[in-house]
This record gives sequence, structure tokens and C-alpha cells, in this order.
Amino acid sequence: MEPGEFDWIRRIVSCLGSGGSEIGDDAAVLTGPDGETWVWTIDTLVENVHFRFDWLEPEAVGHRGLIASLSDLAAMGAEPIAALTALAAPADALAARVERLYAGLAATAQHAGCPVVGGDLSRAGEVQLTVTALGRCPGQVLTRDGAQPGDEVWVTGALGGPAAALALLLREGPTPEVLAHPAYDRLAHPSARVPEAQWLVDRARLGAAIDISDGLSGDAGHVARASGVGIMIETERVPHDAGARDVGRQLDADPIEWVLHGGEEFELLLTARAGSIGPLVNEFEATFGVSLTEIGTAIEGAGVRCIENEVVRPLEPESWDHFGTPSDLGS
Amino acid sequence: MEPGEFDWIRRIVSCLGSGGSEIGDDAAVLTGPDGETWVWTIDTLVENVHFRFDWLEPEAVGHRGLIASLSDLAAMGAEPIAALTALAAPADALAARVERLYAGLAATAQHAGCPVVGGDLSRAGEVQLTVTALGRCPGQVLTRDGAQPGDEVWVTGALGGPAAALALLLREGPTPEVLAHPAYDRLAHPSARVPEAQWLVDRARLGAAIDISDGLSGDAGHVARASGVGIMIETERVPHDAGARDVGRQLDADPIEWVLHGGEEFELLLTARAGSIGPLVNEFEATFGVSLTEIGTAIEGAGVRCIENEVVRPLEPESWDHFGTPSDLGS
Repeated sequence: MEPGEFDWIRRIVSCLGSGGSEIGDDAAVLTGPDGETWVWTIDTLVENVHFRFDWLEPEAVGHRGLIASLSDLAAMGAEPIAALTALAAPADALAARVERLYAGLAATAQHAGCPVVGGDLSRAGEVQLTVTALGRCPGQVLTRDGAQPGDEVWVTGALGGPAAALALLLREGPTPEVLAHPAYDRLAHPSARVPEAQWLVDRARLGAAIDISDGLSGDAGHVARASGVGIMIETERVPHDAGARDVGRQLDADPIEWVLHGGEEFELLLTARAGSIGPLVNEFEATFGVSLTEIGTAIEGAGVRCIENEVVRPLEPESWDHFGTPSDLGS
Repeated sequence: MEPGEFDWIRRIVSCLGSGGSEIGDDAAVLTGPDGETWVWTIDTLVENVHFRFDWLEPEAVGHRGLIASLSDLAAMGAEPIAALTALAAPADALAARVERLYAGLAATAQHAGCPVVGGDLSRAGEVQLTVTALGRCPGQVLTRDGAQPGDEVWVTGALGGPAAALALLLREGPTPEVLAHPAYDRLAHPSARVPEAQWLVDRARLGAAIDISDGLSGDAGHVARASGVGIMIETERVPHDAGARDVGRQLDADPIEWVLHGGEEFELLLTARAGSIGPLVNEFEATFGVSLTEIGTAIEGAGVRCIENEVVRPLEPESWDHFGTPSDLGS
């Protein structure tokens, strides 16, 4: 087996010493200027690994670059303060794409109330967009290690859209029909659940949180490991994106693989003390137009399992490990 | 003429709107509710543009990646708080180089008191290392726009070493003699002048500051433009790195081009109210083992000129513009 990204991250953390310990969450935690908790994240999108320009407009690449960082802030219970960008690109890519990429990023930044306060620009052989974002936590600082046995496991939104869109693009290419498909919209224009997380921090008794960037199976595994619990997911309760279901019919495929393992959903996976979210669901869904669904339970033990038709099986990640698996956009 | 990096940055700033205005300095400025000022910077090193692995050990690449950000903090009058990294690399480069790169970065981080609190790792076609660093300003926040006519212009250290080393590498390749040359050491193991800047903030009446990353001519131009002044540099007073002088003799070249235009020096260019630094020079040099030299004057007007043998001429940048000029490491 090839060493995967997470193996490498663990080895690098040991290289970096104790300061690297916070790498386990979506963002590092800092004590801000007035004692407020700030969180800080960084993410890179690489051309032909995380995106392809023949499949995504430059504006959508810029949007996704910022959303990846905003989603990390959301998963920590943070509101954005500001972002910086670093863009590396071949000189010949600049005229065609860079301004459109930044225009997409800037529009998303304005919409999210996250000013982009600076940046770095380099010549390079391939396009890489790095975004770093700072956020502040007005309330609970959410982490991966806060789940307890007995917690309910919840997810925002419906899953499988981005992975279904990739399957469709691989089969059909970027035809007008594919680019107009609702699943494609989930790939090209995802949201970061920043206000949704704040709303829940203010009202529910939350345990752990993570954004679904590696796929539900993989990210549930991160929470289980960090919290020292097992997680049991009721497969039939996991909400399927309507676009993913439609792609499944078109391609004669069961969308469950996309729903359980697809990456870069940017939905939130949360655990909460029993009974603390249920009474809030109607108001949450009315406020945000986003579903909030209980999909399982944290239990004593370790690992992630799923239960379907009373059969329990381990739910191993088949997620977007950029070094080990074929499920991302790269070759 | 190809559009250079700075043209693109100006266009992108206009794209990003008002939030991008602080891109003009080495770092963005954030103000906390209690008035403490934090600064925030980001820099990317790209393989075969900013460095070549046949010319630099992986540890030196990691070192330089962090130093570029620490030097930006120094130029703002800031002390480091923490850093995050984003590394993208081909899978086959990982085993050989990534751990050594991070080891070099971690050693420099420890030495500088700048913990690396997290990071991102991606598969990519080429190695790109992005470092973002946060710093706090206990005193004056230094910017490029603080120069006034009548200010003295000062520089830390001696210049030309990194560019001389590149000239030597281009001519000779990475022979044992080249790698042992003092000019090469300036290329591979530069310092960030963080404590030096703090010391001067505490004692002198500083105007503007910038780190010499684009070359003395280019960075003096940044200060002149931002401050709305002219800068007159006395060419003969600009300290020549001893290694650069030696390379000049070896290659039968005048090192002045390296001294005036060479990039990634990571020395500081400062302006100060007349007479406020002179009395401090001996103590500065004794404290840090680094020279501090008056090289010119800020004057009414615009642009950078140099004076030599009573002849004044414009000093145009021939600096490390990653998109326009041949003076960097790229093809």
C-alpha cells in the first residue's frame, strides 16, 4: 500500500514537534489579541488534482478555494475575520484565467463577510491556489475530539452530489446537460455552513464537529479516532442529494457510494448530547433552507460502522486521499 | 513587455475590492479589540522558479520558505506568533524530500520561536511550499509608506550574496567548491531580521521599512511609491557582501549588479529621521553581528536614483519579477 496523506501528516507532525499537535483539527487554535479564541486554517487546490479547468469555470475554482477554508472555520464554530491567498500559475494561464478566478473568490469573500486582505502571486508550472483564513469563535470552539458515547450524530444538507457530478463528468464530459445538472451545481458552487454552525453553537449541546471534506466515512473516522468513540451510522437515514439520485438513475449506479464516501461536500458532521438538536430541526430548516438529519450514534468502542436492514458492517473510508486513492480528480 | 507580477497584483487588488488595499505592504494588518496589532503574511516557493532541488538541500528549501514569511514580519516591526504551511508535491518526491524539507522548516521555526501549528498536504505535479505567518507588533507598525523627505535610508547587512551565488551556480553547477562558498551560504541559509527590527523600533525614529526580497532597486522603489518621496542612493556606500565580491573576482564581473538588483536578500531597508540611527550603530552591530549602514536619503519628488562620482542616474529595478524578468531561478 502506498503511504496515504494521513500517514504523511502524522510523520510531519512528529517532525514539527509539539506545535503541530493542533493539526488534528480543521484549523489551529490561537488566543486572539483580547483573549478571544481565533482559529486559523490553510488549504490548497491543485489543478488536475482538486479541479480541472475543463470541468470548472475559473470563478468556481476561486469560489471553492475560499469555501474550503470557510468550511474549516464553520467546523470549528468560527466566523471569518479575513483571508489571504497565494496563487501560483503559468504565465500563459494568467491572462485567461487568473482575474476570473480572483473575481469568483472576491464575490464569495464579500458574500461571506470575509475580506481578502492580501496575497502572493508566483509563476509556476501548474495552477495552485492556497487560501488561509482566520476566524473568531464567539462561543464553543468545536473540535473533532468532543464526541461522547451516547451522542447523536447529525449531518447538515444532503450528500453525494459532488461525487455524482464527477462520475457524470467522467462518463459524459462537460456537456451543456452535465453543466446544468443539479449535482454539478453541488460540485461547482458548494456552501460553507458558517451561519448554520453558529446557530447550533448558540442553541444545542454540541460534542464534536468536522466538515465533510474527505467523505462521510473518512470524516466520521476522524471524529471517532480523535474522540475515542465508535460511531454507528444508520445507512438508510443518510440524506441523499436529489441530483445524486438522478445521476444514479442515469448511470444505472447506486448513489450510496457517493453518499458515504464522496469528498468535498462541505456539509457539517456533528455530534450532540441526546435530545439537544431534535427540537431545533424545524426552525433550523426554516431559517437556512438546509436539512438537518440525525444519522447515527456515538458509542463505546472505536471505528465507524453502518447498519442497514439490521446488518452491521464496518464503514471503511474510500475517501479523497490525495496520495493513495483514485477517487479525486487527478490521474 | 509582458505584464509583470506587480501589474497583476494591482489588477487583482482592484478585483478584490477595498479589503485588498493592505496588499501594498509585506503583510496585512489586523487590529484586535484591545488595540494590539497583528500582521499576517503569505509566501509561496515554487520548484524551478524560486529554487531547484539540485542547487538547494530540502532542509534549505524549508528554511527559506519560513524565512520569507518571518522576514515580512520583521519588515512590519512584528514578532512571530505562529505559522501554518501548505505543501504540494508529486507522490514520488515525498519519500525523498518532504520529511527533510519539513525538518529544515521545523528547526528554523524552533530557532525563531515561531511554532508551526498546522498544515495542509496535497499531491501535485511540482513542489510548491506556501507558508503563512502571524506576528504581533509590540511597538511601531512599520509600513512602506512612512518615509518623509529628509529621512536617512539605512540597510542591514551586506548585499549581493544570493545573486552572486546564483551566478556561480549557473556557471559552475553545484560543485563542492560552490556549495562551500560564503555567497552560497547567503543563498541557502538567509536570516530574517526579526530581533534587529524590534531593537530599532524600540530605539530609533523609523519612517518606512521593507525587506529586500525584490532587490534593493525594486524595494527602494516600493518605498518611494508608497511614501510619495524620491530616494537617492549613494552607490559607493551600499555594503557589498564579501562572498559576492569574491564571486565577482572569480567570474571577472562587477558585483554591483548583484548588490543593487539581486533579490531574496531578506535584509531590511529602513528610513529614519535624520540623526536617530547614527548613535546606535556601534551597539547594533555589537549586539547582532550584523552591519547597519546609511546608504542614502529620502527627498522630495519621486523615483529612485543613485549617485556615484557625482553622477546621478535613475535606478530602475532589474529585480526578481517572477513573470517578467530572467533574474530568478526559473527558465
